[in-house]
Amino acid sequence: MAGSTFGKILRLTTFGESHGPGLGGVLDGCPAGLELSEADIQAELDLRKPGQGPTATKRKEADAVRLLSGVFEGRTTGTPIAFYIANEDQRSRDYGNLAEVFRPGHADWGYFQKYKGIRDYRGGGRSSGRETAARVAGGAIAKKILARRGARICAACVELGGIAVPEAEQDLEGALLRPYFAASDAAPALWDAAVAEARKAGDTLGGIVQIVARNIPAGLGEPVFDKLDAVLAHALMSVGAVKGVEVGDGFAAARRTGWQNNDPLLPGPDESIRSVRFASNHAGGILGGISSGQDIVLRAAVKPIASIALEQQTVNAQGRAATVLVGGRHDLAAIPRIVPVLSAMTALALADALLLQGRMAWDA
Amino acid sequence: MAGSTFGKILRLTTFGESHGPGLGGVLDGCPAGLELSEADIQAELDLRKPGQGPTATKRKEADAVRLLSGVFEGRTTGTPIAFYIANEDQRSRDYGNLAEVFRPGHADWGYFQKYKGIRDYRGGGRSSGRETAARVAGGAIAKKILARRGARICAACVELGGIAVPEAEQDLEGALLRPYFAASDAAPALWDAAVAEARKAGDTLGGIVQIVARNIPAGLGEPVFDKLDAVLAHALMSVGAVKGVEVGDGFAAARRTGWQNNDPLLPGPDESIRSVRFASNHAGGILGGISSGQDIVLRAAVKPIASIALEQQTVNAQGRAATVLVGGRHDLAAIPRIVPVLSAMTALALADALLLQGRMAWDA
Amino acid sequence: MAGSTFGKILRLTTFGESHGPGLGGVLDGCPAGLELSEADIQAELDLRKPGQGPTATKRKEADAVRLLSGVFEGRTTGTPIAFYIANEDQRSRDYGNLAEVFRPGHADWGYFQKYKGIRDYRGGGRSSGRETAARVAGGAIAKKILARRGARICAACVELGGIAVPEAEQDLEGALLRPYFAASDAAPALWDAAVAEARKAGDTLGGIVQIVARNIPAGLGEPVFDKLDAVLAHALMSVGAVKGVEVGDGFAAARRTGWQNNDPLLPGPDESIRSVRFASNHAGGILGGISSGQDIVLRAAVKPIASIALEQQTVNAQGRAATVLVGGRHDLAAIPRIVPVLSAMTALALADALLLQGRMAWDA
Amino acid sequence: MAGSTFGKILRLTTFGESHGPGLGGVLDGCPAGLELSEADIQAELDLRKPGQGPTATKRKEADAVRLLSGVFEGRTTGTPIAFYIANEDQRSRDYGNLAEVFRPGHADWGYFQKYKGIRDYRGGGRSSGRETAARVAGGAIAKKILARRGARICAACVELGGIAVPEAEQDLEGALLRPYFAASDAAPALWDAAVAEARKAGDTLGGIVQIVARNIPAGLGEPVFDKLDAVLAHALMSVGAVKGVEVGDGFAAARRTGWQNNDPLLPGPDESIRSVRFASNHAGGILGGISSGQDIVLRAAVKPIASIALEQQTVNAQGRAATVLVGGRHDLAAIPRIVPVLSAMTALALADALLLQGRMAWDA
Repeated sequence: MAGSTFGKILRLTTFGESHGPGLGGVLDGCPAGLELSEADIQAELDLRKPGQGPTATKRKEADAVRLLSGVFEGRTTGTPIAFYIANEDQRSRDYGNLAEVFRPGHADWGYFQKYKGIRDYRGGGRSSGRETAARVAGGAIAKKILARRGARICAACVELGGIAVPEAEQDLEGALLRPYFAASDAAPALWDAAVAEARKAGDTLGGIVQIVARNIPAGLGEPVFDKLDAVLAHALMSVGAVKGVEVGDGFAAARRTGWQNNDPLLPGPDESIRSVRFASNHAGGILGGISSGQDIVLRAAVKPIASIALEQQTVNAQGRAATVLVGGRHDLAAIPRIVPVLSAMTALALADALLLQGRMAWDA
Repeated sequence: MAGSTFGKILRLTTFGESHGPGLGGVLDGCPAGLELSEADIQAELDLRKPGQGPTATKRKEADAVRLLSGVFEGRTTGTPIAFYIANEDQRSRDYGNLAEVFRPGHADWGYFQKYKGIRDYRGGGRSSGRETAARVAGGAIAKKILARRGARICAACVELGGIAVPEAEQDLEGALLRPYFAASDAAPALWDAAVAEARKAGDTLGGIVQIVARNIPAGLGEPVFDKLDAVLAHALMSVGAVKGVEVGDGFAAARRTGWQNNDPLLPGPDESIRSVRFASNHAGGILGGISSGQDIVLRAAVKPIASIALEQQTVNAQGRAATVLVGGRHDLAAIPRIVPVLSAMTALALADALLLQGRMAWDA
Repeated sequence: MAGSTFGKILRLTTFGESHGPGLGGVLDGCPAGLELSEADIQAELDLRKPGQGPTATKRKEADAVRLLSGVFEGRTTGTPIAFYIANEDQRSRDYGNLAEVFRPGHADWGYFQKYKGIRDYRGGGRSSGRETAARVAGGAIAKKILARRGARICAACVELGGIAVPEAEQDLEGALLRPYFAASDAAPALWDAAVAEARKAGDTLGGIVQIVARNIPAGLGEPVFDKLDAVLAHALMSVGAVKGVEVGDGFAAARRTGWQNNDPLLPGPDESIRSVRFASNHAGGILGGISSGQDIVLRAAVKPIASIALEQQTVNAQGRAATVLVGGRHDLAAIPRIVPVLSAMTALALADALLLQGRMAWDA
Repeated sequence: MAGSTFGKILRLTTFGESHGPGLGGVLDGCPAGLELSEADIQAELDLRKPGQGPTATKRKEADAVRLLSGVFEGRTTGTPIAFYIANEDQRSRDYGNLAEVFRPGHADWGYFQKYKGIRDYRGGGRSSGRETAARVAGGAIAKKILARRGARICAACVELGGIAVPEAEQDLEGALLRPYFAASDAAPALWDAAVAEARKAGDTLGGIVQIVARNIPAGLGEPVFDKLDAVLAHALMSVGAVKGVEVGDGFAAARRTGWQNNDPLLPGPDESIRSVRFASNHAGGILGGISSGQDIVLRAAVKPIASIALEQQTVNAQGRAATVLVGGRHDLAAIPRIVPVLSAMTALALADALLLQGRMAWDA
């Protein structure tokens, strides 16, 4: 209820602050018998590790994960899987001046109001983007569950600083090998210039991430309130900095007619119910809240990082006018590090829907 | 877990199909002592009643609500509030031909897959837009809870068939008195032409709805997974036909810099913590997932109605090629009837967050 | 959260007061494809109908159930199953004098405190035993789910007014055909005398109900907090008047040694893992919170009905001394009508555990 | 859903196995501003630490707890409180012979069935009593929440090996200072003899624990399914070895009449609603599932430890006859170490009910 748990059958509970001892999570509900090692999780964590990539903070964290429970002789046992990542490179003194002012664009004001003045101001405390490491760790396990069914997630940056990758050039499959986890080979060079300019100006950039889930079986999601797209929107919007979510054609669909937007069903080669296909995928793989078997296509709008290197107008804890120059070490954009986070949230939501639907091949 | 319940403290469970005996819901968790009558609920229901407005179906339903429990001597007792709306004008025979084919753009295919071939095909059964009447009824009660705190919801159509209301002309307050629940006085005339054209073509239209919640206290929402915007995105995206959700500036925020996008805090006239204001509201009233006290601003992309009056390509229940001409009586656009539905979902999510935060004035 | 919902996958939400329009429930999460009719539910409801049996109230209620959703062409569709039972024989005037005093042994005082003075005092409102009709209706569906797996529930009264059925004479299978749903043929005659005496004295009686679930597969229940016995204890103790719950030998187990209490495992005739048996069943079919495949054996202590025909000492709503003579029409014992209620709760808990474990034969 | 989380507002999620790296938990939903240190938790943990007391195992564990999150400058921040206890004195080799046989009276068989043959057999893995350390840690925080309201929990052993403490001699307040956490000064000497005899016979003992919660406000608990006694029964029965739960007079109430069992309400000295008292407390402080303001009185039946030092009949993983002599180091009775565990579960359930009711003094 206090918001640190996600999922119904596969439930991830996370904990930890940016400048506390560490952070971690407990994933309950993972079926027994899944092969799992610390290396499986570490591989995903390394994708969002601080200190790498063209927009990165200088904070260095090994983000080395340790499994504390739920795995025996290399396989999950069905009991909760706990993992822990110690914080290492904290320079909390960078934040001493933030105890008394509210940073614009940050959670400071909301937490101050919510918790009646009590907050861990060091690096944003619980509201720090560092919290997402636990999501990525949980998502790594969710991806292994999906993989048992042959499903997988691709994600890429399709726009940065207003410079979009044309749809025709998008290739999400190769994104993890490119700077910025870019959706095309050409994009990083274009974005480098925008990043250099922003860095010079002491400013930050936003962008758009696209996520595609492939080979998701039809029939996932629940009617009415827990439609698959509703749960996915919840999952993506729960990541700090996300301000918009689209499923399939999203806002563009609002500008088309029914004839243009409907995806006709086509018979497969053997004209059986198992081979049914669709002539298009405007819906993004979800119809009436239930997966159709097509690719699930999502887009998330990521706002520019709020921590800029410019003096900003604000108020202090007494409500008086103040200025703030945010110190600490910050990324210039949530992209690319947010890409594996959004991928992880998609995986968690889909693996949960899969388990809820009760279709796990090795459960039958 | 099967998706028919929304909320944590204030929990709405709904039931009912388009062509069954009726539909309704149970709202559990409403505090005792709230004045409530059937008329309070009926007033909201009448806003989304079938058969009225320029885009409406010809199906007529009184949608008369009856309270079955939870209210005694005109006030809520704290026990579950059940309500029921009987179906009246069913012409199920319109749907007999749909038992064997899947309508493009509808939930038919997903339900067929999910429930292994079993489905109530009459008017979409549970996946019918008619299901939303129960949301509006529940939302009417949520709005009364919010009103106790001085909060309220406005909603309006800001775009239809690709014709947008310019931001400068938007006036959400007057929307309920205008055709289409339009955001400006000028819009309906423009939209009439687009609707006439679509109707002539046997086609349907989509649009965009904007929702604003005013006087919501700061501090609502939970960190990490249940951020207020994540829950609101869940709430809106759970309404059939919604394909995208934005909070505040949404996708536009992805194209701005941090300097442009941050909302500076300003001291109030008495320079106290209680009078703090913001210089702008790009964030849409939510920072780090917690309400800031500013207006909460949401936008939902509504796809065109999938039931068009044109023959469409599809497959039948055996997977063979077929065509379908959707009979029945359908709206030409989900707008305007979806406007009170989105307003209701916003109210349910916010009233729940308010109760979860424990700040109800009459609870103290 | 407000307590009107039970279950995780199979979720029953109930509503209704003793003297309101009626009561009912919504069962969400029932798999599609289960044959279900109003008659199936009515048969169970008739077992707890008011106005029959040696301890019964004179209130007559047909308790005719109506299905409002979730069933199409005689089978469940996977969508929520709503049902409704109208109240008929209300004599609310019997309760007018109870608006201002608290009945000893009743929920009046607690509700008054909980809801800050607001309560529907007519017949106990939501706290009335009449609320259990909705449990029985939901339990009837749960029993059909269990029956698909070959499992079933027996329940009987094994003690009334301090007169117990000796263990050697117990025959639960025949209980539904006997007065008091007694566990032996001999018991009713003995109990008649005790009932006659209590009636003459204006007093009421308590007793003990035993419930046995047969053919429940091994492996149900969850480790740690949601052990199967914990959930069953929750289920039974949630029925008004139940003050104690035992699993297997219960309190007697506390007085034995480990050697006496352990149930040895025995090889089956073919010495395979599928035919393993146990030499005894002190555990009542649950070990470490997980079902063992043996009969699940539960006992519930049922307190005497609080509504006695004697003047009692109490206080009024101002806290001043008062007396109360409870009018209305009341049972002399919760037995036998509580028997089908406890059976229903057991069925709901076990069917939920079965669905959670994902072992439904027709789901494979 | 997989059973590792308890509570609604105050939610404890635990993890860890007996012979894994360690165990711990995450407590989400604790209000901000509560003073909390590792020492607060350690004090409670020390009460159930292995290796002390007349019935104790020889396994030595410091059970030193470490706080990983949620506390800043000595006070809770409202974010999840994670804690961790490393395992130290593991002698897993003691358990190697248990991989292939099922110990009678243990969870081995159920886990084998539930998880399709996969289990961590070392010391019972997740089903080990060692899991309860995390409950005690969480309960320590719950007790601090209750203490803010002036409420507290007492618990004591009232019966061991069939030797009961007469009700007239019971003094729960002093229990923590006595061997066995006994309810009287006289009891330990009597129990020593029974323990010596059982130890000589290689056998184990059970007993009964009584828990009393004092100064709990009236109005806690929810109607219908989440009655306060139902939630408490769930809480206590979720502790391994508990086979029965009573509220107030429990099974004895089933043998009394309504006149004998009802607790009359009495006016207080000032005849105001705030000073109302009761003439007796047969109900154990809960009426209709709602707390009455009287002491909440609970009793739990604790079965004898299943690990006895005698050869027992069983089957192996292939279903063939086998014998087992359980090695490892085991307590001779769950008492006294289960006493702080049951106290902790009571505290968690009551603190959750308190927060759900929204009456926290420092929340107003």
